Amino acid sequence: MTDAISFQLEAVSGKARAATLRTPHGELRTPFFMPVGTVAAVKGLTPAMLREAGSQIVLANTYHLAVRPGEKLVDAFGGVAKFMGWHGPTLTDSGGFQAFSLAKIRKMDDAGVRFQNHFDGAELFLTPESAVEIQQLLGADMFMILDECPPANSSREKVAEAVGRTTRWAKRCFDAWSNREKQALFGIVQGGLFEDLRAESAEQIGEIGFPGNAIGGVSVGEDPAEMDRIVAHTAPLLPETKPRYLMGVGRPQDMLRAISHGVDMFDCVMPTRHARHAQAFTSSGTINLKNNCHREDESPLDPQCDCYACRTVSRGYLRHLFNVKEMLGPIYLSIHNIRFYHHLMEQARAAIIANRYDAFLREKLSGLES
Amino acid sequence: MTDAISFQLEAVSGKARAATLRTPHGELRTPFFMPVGTVAAVKGLTPAMLREAGSQIVLANTYHLAVRPGEKLVDAFGGVAKFMGWHGPTLTDSGGFQAFSLAKIRKMDDAGVRFQNHFDGAELFLTPESAVEIQQLLGADMFMILDECPPANSSREKVAEAVGRTTRWAKRCFDAWSNREKQALFGIVQGGLFEDLRAESAEQIGEIGFPGNAIGGVSVGEDPAEMDRIVAHTAPLLPETKPRYLMGVGRPQDMLRAISHGVDMFDCVMPTRHARHAQAFTSSGTINLKNNCHREDESPLDPQCDCYACRTVSRGYLRHLFNVKEMLGPIYLSIHNIRFYHHLMEQARAAIIANRYDAFLREKLSGLES
Repeated sequence: MTDAISFQLEAVSGKARAATLRTPHGELRTPFFMPVGTVAAVKGLTPAMLREAGSQIVLANTYHLAVRPGEKLVDAFGGVAKFMGWHGPTLTDSGGFQAFSLAKIRKMDDAGVRFQNHFDGAELFLTPESAVEIQQLLGADMFMILDECPPANSSREKVAEAVGRTTRWAKRCFDAWSNREKQALFGIVQGGLFEDLRAESAEQIGEIGFPGNAIGGVSVGEDPAEMDRIVAHTAPLLPETKPRYLMGVGRPQDMLRAISHGVDMFDCVMPTRHARHAQAFTSSGTINLKNNCHREDESPLDPQCDCYACRTVSRGYLRHLFNVKEMLGPIYLSIHNIRFYHHLMEQARAAIIANRYDAFLREKLSGLES
Repeated sequence: MTDAISFQLEAVSGKARAATLRTPHGELRTPFFMPVGTVAAVKGLTPAMLREAGSQIVLANTYHLAVRPGEKLVDAFGGVAKFMGWHGPTLTDSGGFQAFSLAKIRKMDDAGVRFQNHFDGAELFLTPESAVEIQQLLGADMFMILDECPPANSSREKVAEAVGRTTRWAKRCFDAWSNREKQALFGIVQGGLFEDLRAESAEQIGEIGFPGNAIGGVSVGEDPAEMDRIVAHTAPLLPETKPRYLMGVGRPQDMLRAISHGVDMFDCVMPTRHARHAQAFTSSGTINLKNNCHREDESPLDPQCDCYACRTVSRGYLRHLFNVKEMLGPIYLSIHNIRFYHHLMEQARAAIIANRYDAFLREKLSGLES
């Protein structure tokens, strides 16, 4: 029985890596960013628009899909990719992060997480075993263990407990995972801002032998410098021959720094969420398209961008769309922001292959943080 | 000085016509439907999506653009087509219809229509001359005279007054029209449900010598059979060598009947508005994608449709999108409904060229009204 995925390293530049990740539904060039399609839909973008923007893979959320329309229906439609008309690889999270972000509507103990769902209050009980079962029905190429993700301000004792529980759950997920040739299960490392707990978690998770590993418990309230310290410390502790995924990050500069520490995969709602709030990413920082200063501006969002929005319309037109609350405004900005993220990853890959990632990182950061 | 447009009749089938309408920004095959881009944006659809759906031309609304962002700004961006990134012909209405649909916020007399606009209550004074001036700044290939459009339940006296005023305004618009080689001005016939007043109006408007003519004052509250009677009566009274435009209609069956009376051009918000309310047009009638009966349906919206939505996703997935209120639902249905309208026009044209329009009409109506 062969594994569902394989990971072939092609170049390194310092600790930054360029690789090819093969999945049952296609090959992925690393590093890559995954647009978030929470309910099997990236907000405002069809699969054709995603493909044109350079998306290689789409992420969907287990908790949300289990609530609506239910994993059994998604399975009946042939899995999440087929359901949404996406002809390519997919990844699902486990619901562990929703146990953090929806803390008010759940109870957690060693058995699992009991949600009263956000839609109609019905119970959803996620255990390590049910999280695997649900995700096997969703049928993504890669899926995640159930983990416990404590907030950034948690005590050392609380974080140590979460590390222990995450390891116990990781083993239960690993044992419940029954279709290894079709779907690859990823482990998740916790440990908060404590370097020794991160090391302990990385060792325990790494030993289980997942085909991929993730850094979880980041972007949960800590400041970016703290997050960078933890990623720099943790990424090199994850198995070198397997893909490394930094969950829920995020800002372009944070992703670029994480790549320099050896991270390969990212996801975040930021590009599409920002787009709906008129925030566009550009090579010289973010701009707000609601601002009146763009009213007469005939230039594109970003002269360095090749996306459909930048090829088609001006800042002045986009400002008009947000001013009159037309849905095309969020659509155009979603196209642009997603393309911006993918383009950044493509540039990062090229810089790694040219073995000049550190110089590239400095150049990009000076633009993004100017 | 040559006219901005030319109209070449290519085939007739009964009174139905297939022609080519040449404009400064491209050729149009008749009969055709114009998607409504009220504020220089068709809701939810980029120009590329419109083009793929078969759109030949886009309509925009003078009243709305005059309120926001203002015709001077649109002019500074090179006109409405360039502003919205649409590389093709455009048409603007005059604001006359908004004097009907926004009757509560306007006052009308022979001088013109005084609006307190819907956005901030500022005054917008549309006169025949200012309606022309604004539309010349908007720069569409075709534009409309200011007319008075009374509701369907108006008295004969009221309708006769509107006919007289529309003719007086038509002459003032014609005189104010200064760029005849760049933009073509269309006359509008009023007369409500009174056949003699329609004939009087058609004669008066026809005599002025506009390069195109429209039937206005329909779809304002009358029932479909009444409208059809008036269109059947009025269309043949409009100059045969010029394009005929039925304003604001509408339902697929109403358009198909109007074509049989000699109408060439249509516009309506229905396909995109219905899409936002989960209503899809199909060859066997409309369906509501919110209905639970579609939950497990893996078939496309319409097996006879070649649109991107029908090629990509199922009724079950679309029902899910509306169920969870994802904006992709309205986007997919807008693509489909617009394609449905254009496909209907393409089929009508083929039937006219094959000189079998009556048979085609009967077949289509039996499906649409089944």
